[in-house]
Amino acid sequence: MKRIAVLGSTGSIGRQTLEVVRSFPDKFEVVAIAGKNNIALLREQVAEFNPRLVYPDPGEISGISVRTQCLALEEMASHPDVDMVVVATAGKAGLGLTLAAIRAGKKVALANKEVLVMAGELITTEAKRNQADLYPIDSEHSAIWQCLIGEDNKEISRLILTASGGPFRQRTERQLADVTPEEALRHPTWQMGVKVTIDSATLMNKGMELIEARWLFNIPLSRIEVVIHPQSIVHSIVEFVDGSAKAQLSMPDMRLPIQYALTYPERWESPYRQEIDLGKVGLLQFEPPDLNRFPSLRLAMQAGEKGGTYPAVLSAADEVAIELFLSKRIRFTDIASLVSRTLDRHEVVNEPSLEEIMAADAWARKTAMATIGVAE
Amino acid sequence: MKRIAVLGSTGSIGRQTLEVVRSFPDKFEVVAIAGKNNIALLREQVAEFNPRLVYPDPGEISGISVRTQCLALEEMASHPDVDMVVVATAGKAGLGLTLAAIRAGKKVALANKEVLVMAGELITTEAKRNQADLYPIDSEHSAIWQCLIGEDNKEISRLILTASGGPFRQRTERQLADVTPEEALRHPTWQMGVKVTIDSATLMNKGMELIEARWLFNIPLSRIEVVIHPQSIVHSIVEFVDGSAKAQLSMPDMRLPIQYALTYPERWESPYRQEIDLGKVGLLQFEPPDLNRFPSLRLAMQAGEKGGTYPAVLSAADEVAIELFLSKRIRFTDIASLVSRTLDRHEVVNEPSLEEIMAADAWARKTAMATIGVAE
Repeated sequence: MKRIAVLGSTGSIGRQTLEVVRSFPDKFEVVAIAGKNNIALLREQVAEFNPRLVYPDPGEISGISVRTQCLALEEMASHPDVDMVVVATAGKAGLGLTLAAIRAGKKVALANKEVLVMAGELITTEAKRNQADLYPIDSEHSAIWQCLIGEDNKEISRLILTASGGPFRQRTERQLADVTPEEALRHPTWQMGVKVTIDSATLMNKGMELIEARWLFNIPLSRIEVVIHPQSIVHSIVEFVDGSAKAQLSMPDMRLPIQYALTYPERWESPYRQEIDLGKVGLLQFEPPDLNRFPSLRLAMQAGEKGGTYPAVLSAADEVAIELFLSKRIRFTDIASLVSRTLDRHEVVNEPSLEEIMAADAWARKTAMATIGVAE
Repeated sequence: MKRIAVLGSTGSIGRQTLEVVRSFPDKFEVVAIAGKNNIALLREQVAEFNPRLVYPDPGEISGISVRTQCLALEEMASHPDVDMVVVATAGKAGLGLTLAAIRAGKKVALANKEVLVMAGELITTEAKRNQADLYPIDSEHSAIWQCLIGEDNKEISRLILTASGGPFRQRTERQLADVTPEEALRHPTWQMGVKVTIDSATLMNKGMELIEARWLFNIPLSRIEVVIHPQSIVHSIVEFVDGSAKAQLSMPDMRLPIQYALTYPERWESPYRQEIDLGKVGLLQFEPPDLNRFPSLRLAMQAGEKGGTYPAVLSAADEVAIELFLSKRIRFTDIASLVSRTLDRHEVVNEPSLEEIMAADAWARKTAMATIGVAE
C-alpha cells in the first residue's frame, strides 16, 4: 500500500487523483486530504476515503467512526505516515508545503505550476539535498519523463514541449484584442481550471512549462523548444544527440500522467484507459509558435533565462492580469503587456530564498495593480 | 575499441555500416569484412579498413602490407577476435552465420530480414541459451527497441509498426495490376535494395517485420499492428497497458538505427545527424492498411500466426515471385497470389530445425515455380 496525501483534493487535479486512487483500492491508501473552499465536496471525499488527516475541519460526518485529525498542509506534507505527497494546490500556496514534503524526504507528485516557476532553483536544490523524488503530473513533463526512462540525460539534445495552441491559434493580432473571458475559457482539448485555461490561451502556460522543464530535467532553456500541436496527442518530445527522438502519445486525459506519477516505475491497466487509434486520428499537425501574436511565451522565456526572482514576478503579474481580464477591466492582449511592464521595473534578486521569492511575488502584484492604476 | 565483423559489406546496409564506423575511427575496429559479387568495392573497403579477416579473397592490394586472412562467413561470425557481428547479408545466406555468431555468444546486429522470418523461434531460443544479444538494425524494430529502453516488456499492450505504404498507397486494385518493375523500384522515402523495395510496395516487407517483431520482443502477433504513415518520420510505436504510448522519430536515414545498434546503450553525436523540424514537417499522417489491396500483409500475418515452417515458405515463395515480376513473367498483383497458392500447398513442420527450415525453403521455391509452370 502506497500511503498518499492529496493536497488540493477538491480542485481539478485533486479530484482526478482521487479517481485514479479509487480505481486501485488495494494499492493506495489516502492518508491525508486537504481542500480549500468546497467543503461539501471535501466532506464527500472524507466519507469515501476515510483519511486519518484532513484540512480544513470538515465537521461531523455520519458513517465515519474514527475522527480524523485536522492538520495544516505543511504538517500533512511532512507527516511520517505519508509516503507520497500529491501537490494539487494552485498558486503560491504550493511552495511552502512542497518544501516541507521535500525536506521530509517524501516522494512529491507535483501539479502546482507555480512551485517550479517561482522557486525552481530552491526546490530542486533542496530535493537533491534531501534525496526527495520530484515527479511531474503535467502531461508535457510526464511525457518527457517517460521518454527519458532508461536514457542518459547527458545525451539529450533538445526537449520539445507541445502546445495545443489554445482556442485562438488562428486569430490575428487584431482579433485577439477583442477576445472575451467567455471565449478564452473554452479550451479545445483539455478540461482544466480557470487560470490555466487562460494561460493556455495566451501561451503563458507553455512558457511556464519551459521554466518547469528547465528545473525538472536540469536542461538549459536554450535547449528547450515549443511546437504547436493542436490535437494534443503527442504530449512532448525528447531529441537525443544521435538525432533520434522519442515522443509520448496518448488521448488527452489527465488521469494518465497522474496515474504514472502514482505508479512509477510501474504501469497499471486502468478502467479509464483509452487506446490511441492513429488510423482514426489521421493527422497530427505541428507548427512553430508565433511569438508576435503570443508574446507571453517570449516573456516567460526571457524571465526564465534571466532567472533569480524574475520568474516569480512573471507568475504573480500574470495572475493579477488574468483576474483583471476575467473581471473585464483589461483586454486579452493587455495581459502580456501588463506582465511585460511589471518585469521591466523589477530589480532582480539572484539565488533567492523562499522569503525573497515571496517578497518578489508581493512586489509584482502591487506593481502590476499600480501600473494600470488599480488600488489593491 | 569495439571489434566488428561486417558481413555483407558491399550491400546497402553494409556500406552504411562502414560509413558509421568511418565517423568514429577511435571507437570501432573493423576486424572482418565479407562481401559478395562487388569485388572492386570489397577491395576498396579492405584498403580503407585493413581488416584481419576477409571473404572472398580480394587479391593483392597495394598499400596493404599485412595479408588479410581469408575465412568463410560462419568462421568470421564466430571468430574470437570479433565482439559484434553486423549481419548485413541478404536472403537465407544470413541464417547459418547468424546461428554461428549466436552460438559463439557474440553481439549480433541484425539487418538480414530472412533470419528471423524463417527461423525466429530457433534463433531466439539459441540466443537465450547462449546469452547472445540480438540488436535490430531495421528502423522499425530499432524504434521499438528504443521505446522499450527502461520499460518492462510485460507492460506492453501493443506494438504498432509504421509503414510508408510504398509508392502505390493510393492506387486502386485495378491500377495495381499494371504496375511495372520500374515503377515499383521507386520508393518514396527510403533508399534500399531491390528485393526490399518491391516488398515495400506490396507491404510484404511490413508483414515480415511483424514476424520479426514477434520474435525480437517476444510479443504475440495478435498484439502487433501496422499503421500506414507516408512521411516515414515516426518509425514505430509501443503502447503500454496504462494507455500511454511512446514513438521513436527521426528523419529517414538508415545510418541512425545502424549507429544505435553499434553504440547501444550509448548515443553518439554523428556528422550525419539531422534534427527533426516538426514545425517544418507540418503534418504526420496515419491511416489503417488496406488488406484487400495489399494481400501480402495478410498472408504474412497468417503465416506468422500459424508458425512452424510457414514463414520460411512465405519468404521463399515471395523471393521467387519477385524475381518473376522483375523479369516481367508475372504481374505485380500475381506476387501475392503465387505466395498464397504456395502456402496453401504446404505441409507444416512445427518447431523446425535449421535443416527442416532449409528443406521448406527449397520446397517452396520449387513449388512456386511449378505453380506458374516455370521450370527451375
